[in-house]
Amino acid sequence: MTPRFDKKRSKNYDGRMEWLNNLFNPKKRIYLDYAAATPVRLEAQNEMAKYWSAHFYNPSAIYEEGLVIKKEIDDYRSRLAALLGAGQKEIIFTGSGTESVNLAILGAFEESLYVFKRPHIIISAIEHSAVVRAADEVVRRGGECSVVPVDEEGRVSLEALKKLIKNTTFLISISLANSEIGVVQPISAIGRLVRERRKARNATNGNGSFLNYPMLHTDASAAPAYLPATLESLQCEMITLDGSKISGPKGIGLLAVRRGVKLRPIILGGSQEEGRRAGTLSPALIAGLTVALELAAKERAEETKRMESLRGQFVAHVVKVLPQAAVNGSLEDNLPNIVSISVPGILAEMVVLQLDREGVCASVGTACSLDERVSGSPVIRALGKPELAESTVRFSFGRQTTATEVKRAAEIFLRILSKNAKIGS
Amino acid sequence: MTPRFDKKRSKNYDGRMEWLNNLFNPKKRIYLDYAAATPVRLEAQNEMAKYWSAHFYNPSAIYEEGLVIKKEIDDYRSRLAALLGAGQKEIIFTGSGTESVNLAILGAFEESLYVFKRPHIIISAIEHSAVVRAADEVVRRGGECSVVPVDEEGRVSLEALKKLIKNTTFLISISLANSEIGVVQPISAIGRLVRERRKARNATNGNGSFLNYPMLHTDASAAPAYLPATLESLQCEMITLDGSKISGPKGIGLLAVRRGVKLRPIILGGSQEEGRRAGTLSPALIAGLTVALELAAKERAEETKRMESLRGQFVAHVVKVLPQAAVNGSLEDNLPNIVSISVPGILAEMVVLQLDREGVCASVGTACSLDERVSGSPVIRALGKPELAESTVRFSFGRQTTATEVKRAAEIFLRILSKNAKIGS
Repeated sequence: MTPRFDKKRSKNYDGRMEWLNNLFNPKKRIYLDYAAATPVRLEAQNEMAKYWSAHFYNPSAIYEEGLVIKKEIDDYRSRLAALLGAGQKEIIFTGSGTESVNLAILGAFEESLYVFKRPHIIISAIEHSAVVRAADEVVRRGGECSVVPVDEEGRVSLEALKKLIKNTTFLISISLANSEIGVVQPISAIGRLVRERRKARNATNGNGSFLNYPMLHTDASAAPAYLPATLESLQCEMITLDGSKISGPKGIGLLAVRRGVKLRPIILGGSQEEGRRAGTLSPALIAGLTVALELAAKERAEETKRMESLRGQFVAHVVKVLPQAAVNGSLEDNLPNIVSISVPGILAEMVVLQLDREGVCASVGTACSLDERVSGSPVIRALGKPELAESTVRFSFGRQTTATEVKRAAEIFLRILSKNAKIGS
Repeated sequence: MTPRFDKKRSKNYDGRMEWLNNLFNPKKRIYLDYAAATPVRLEAQNEMAKYWSAHFYNPSAIYEEGLVIKKEIDDYRSRLAALLGAGQKEIIFTGSGTESVNLAILGAFEESLYVFKRPHIIISAIEHSAVVRAADEVVRRGGECSVVPVDEEGRVSLEALKKLIKNTTFLISISLANSEIGVVQPISAIGRLVRERRKARNATNGNGSFLNYPMLHTDASAAPAYLPATLESLQCEMITLDGSKISGPKGIGLLAVRRGVKLRPIILGGSQEEGRRAGTLSPALIAGLTVALELAAKERAEETKRMESLRGQFVAHVVKVLPQAAVNGSLEDNLPNIVSISVPGILAEMVVLQLDREGVCASVGTACSLDERVSGSPVIRALGKPELAESTVRFSFGRQTTATEVKRAAEIFLRILSKNAKIGS
């Protein structure tokens, strides 16, 4: 990482020292795994700082200090709600994106049991393990699950999805952007489809009652820095976000829901979050998440352009030398910061370890699941390329990535591959 | 709060400024609600600092930076495990104490369904809402729940508990110390009882298989600053802790379990925490929790003595003037930092609001439940004093509480009560 020196950004001593260290450090490492973790930006850290010891009060307390904290949390909540097109009371804070996904899927499932005997969920073939495991849990608890396949670019087919929706479908959960290959799904089109089905079913329902099923949930954790995501623009009922993926703190996520969405809490206890998620709120983490998301939205257009350019340079550099390398994802609609490259015959884990030795941080699929490291990426398998599941490396760029770094990383990557080829030949 | 000026503690500018501000601020408020929230101590903040942006890497990543973070987390885990008498792999990090309680109760319940048709849980009559609601959920999912009553000091009777244990009891969940009145339960005696029952049942089981039921879980969140709590000393299978109650950060809790305890995760996804709790770990929060707990253990003896003295002064001061005031909890075995006072005829919520206006932060029961504010404290009801359920104020002391503050708070409390009495007469 080479943070560009920005006086406004680097008001604090640490920031300046880091910049100087990087400048004079010849062994500077190149971090290209922003899809796995992002450093918390200084603005977010500064906003968080006061809540550790100065304003540490319990937001549920009834004295002045408690009320002030509660008001500040409500303000953050409003700011997040505005960004996500939700009502202020429809932002539920969780301990992670994973918990948010679990609340969306299992919370909606438990409520749907009042309506359906055997509620049905649909997920895509390239969902994050949180979605996959929560859908497995739906099945374990007596529900059903269908998996909608994706094409070789990773895009969900609307036609296939249409056929899978049943009268007992309570939820469709498809991520807005895949964190492994970066493919962006046509969520708003899916949302319109879901809405039509809901209307049609309610019209033929006969008894005049209106059911809010099926609903659409999207895990947008990988997207906010590059794609706007509101409940309205995505035509969906629930959106999951995670602090750690958008230069905010680790340890917080959120679920934004449309008014009227019924969820049974998965963590029970106090009456925080309108009874939908018990546990003392962490104002510091909430503050950090809010600032991070606001800045991501503000810098979105510029950063997207910058990332597209970096991605283009990186891909061009690699493909020129290595024509057999295939870039996964969609040509038309992909996150601009993720490059997933499959090279026939390589063992990705070995390459990532060699990259590490040469000073480049990259990854094999997502960091979340040990299973994937053993049997190769299930996402690449789902694209119909099982032979490449263990031969795919992900590079993901972020706020501090520079053109120089990207160029150097591509060179190192190519050098490693050519060395491996020589060893093999 | 008047932080004593301590050069070692106040290395940083903020700490010194706060001390100076307090010294010259005539309107300084007196915070006596440490049972609801504690400021994060500087040592913990300092330890947390590096993980926000310098060491922000994903601990599941396989490059050097990820491995370093993983190692550091494992070190924190070992330090926590040592304090709690658990194996290093038996510390499960959660997003709060509430989540930890839910994982203990619902995670154990789901596993017990492989053994019992209708698993049975026992909780005490004065548990925190997290335990109460999780036990309700056990019932909703087809289990049974018994509530063991407490005497007027709030102590669980071993005899009563003995009678309630059934052959289908999978868990007994009783808090080590109650956060509202401070009564400390005889957990190790309960643990021995549970162990005997387990042995006896396994002996008569016939088929030679050994069942790990019933187990004992204790929510020790309110206790660590004053009571040592290890799995061995408490003779229990699971211990819950919460960062926000021990001068650590909000947004993290933990569940320490004995080796062999089977839990089904309540949050599913990645394979973090040995598959028992999915979601990216937050190294900063883990670091803060560890340092806070270590320092709490180190200062325990001294702080306990100091709190006992403060509590004694406060109680003596109040009771001398107001003989009808009754101090709740146990005379023999109580947290030294909690004073729960019932005064016949007062409306506690009004008194807390008046205390707030006079500069004292106190509370009505716990901050976690809105229900309690409406119908009065269920804990005081359970003591057999329903008429005092809305007439009980809690003062709780902490690291920065001074004798001067306690004296002034007692005077203000007495003045408010005497004013109210005049209005009433």
